[in-house]
Amino acid sequence: MKGDSIEGGEISKVTSLRKGVTKGLSIMDFILRIIGAIATLASAVSMATTNETLPFVTQFVRFRAEFDDLPTFMFFVTANSVVCGYLVLSLVLSIFHIVRSSAVKTRILLVILDTVILGLLTAAASAAAAIVYIAHKGNSNTNWFSICQQYNNFCERISGSLIGSFIAVFLFVILILLGAVAISRN
Amino acid sequence: MKGDSIEGGEISKVTSLRKGVTKGLSIMDFILRIIGAIATLASAVSMATTNETLPFVTQFVRFRAEFDDLPTFMFFVTANSVVCGYLVLSLVLSIFHIVRSSAVKTRILLVILDTVILGLLTAAASAAAAIVYIAHKGNSNTNWFSICQQYNNFCERISGSLIGSFIAVFLFVILILLGAVAISRN
Repeated sequence: MKGDSIEGGEISKVTSLRKGVTKGLSIMDFILRIIGAIATLASAVSMATTNETLPFVTQFVRFRAEFDDLPTFMFFVTANSVVCGYLVLSLVLSIFHIVRSSAVKTRILLVILDTVILGLLTAAASAAAAIVYIAHKGNSNTNWFSICQQYNNFCERISGSLIGSFIAVFLFVILILLGAVAISRN
Repeated sequence: MKGDSIEGGEISKVTSLRKGVTKGLSIMDFILRIIGAIATLASAVSMATTNETLPFVTQFVRFRAEFDDLPTFMFFVTANSVVCGYLVLSLVLSIFHIVRSSAVKTRILLVILDTVILGLLTAAASAAAAIVYIAHKGNSNTNWFSICQQYNNFCERISGSLIGSFIAVFLFVILILLGAVAISRN
């Protein structure tokens, strides 16, 4: 009987340790989601508020660059806003996982959604990066000239706003891994 | 005793059914990886072999468009080749999962790698798509003119080569989900 109770105590200790680690993973998941939401929000806002008016005007043209001159940047802002909204909403499920660390089905749902959203965000960030590259360097073969010599501030802002998105992409990869590990532990 | 053996038989039946479903998932994983490898290979090859020489020549310039005129397309070809190679190599692990359906650690490894590769492929495909869009439509605000009116065949080829990549992106999302489901079953 004595041996039994010691064994039982050890098993429950191991189980509670397991639960503790899973809870730790869930809390980390929660924190990463908040950071990701802030990063994508910063990206969306800094891209959306970017515009530059050059200090000279001709009779017909006012030289002004705005983010919505390029459809790719509009996609970038939309995608980042969507991802930010998704991350805020997913906090509910993340809290649920902290409370009930044995949940599996909702974790799978979250991994699925995270993967789709990772795809969306990566697409937006890298499409914008491709355009920013052309804006900086131009391309002599296609006669697309760099616009960054005229719109210097504009270019710096749009380059900077990519950072938040790529941070969020990196976070999503970690989130999916944490999700997979947490699922495998249950 | 009789009741016991019937129960034992039922349990082993349920277990073997479970194993069968997991094996089915692994076989599906294997098939999807082969399709993905073919799709990315087709993308890489069709992009890399694209060039068009216009049927007129000036004294100094021969009008010729090749995929490596644009660095984004070189990234696209490289990324698709890498992904194709990865998919072929991952077939080994996939076969291992068909044989040993209870493996968990290698499945987690595969989900991790798949997620990273999904990021790479999505980045390449959408960056190329952004450039193809500019090549087709041009952008009047930045004075980047469409090159597709001159290089019509070139544009059709590069647009077509995107398809394989986006199919592979879609397959990767499914592969990650299959992986997560298979992990949760063990």
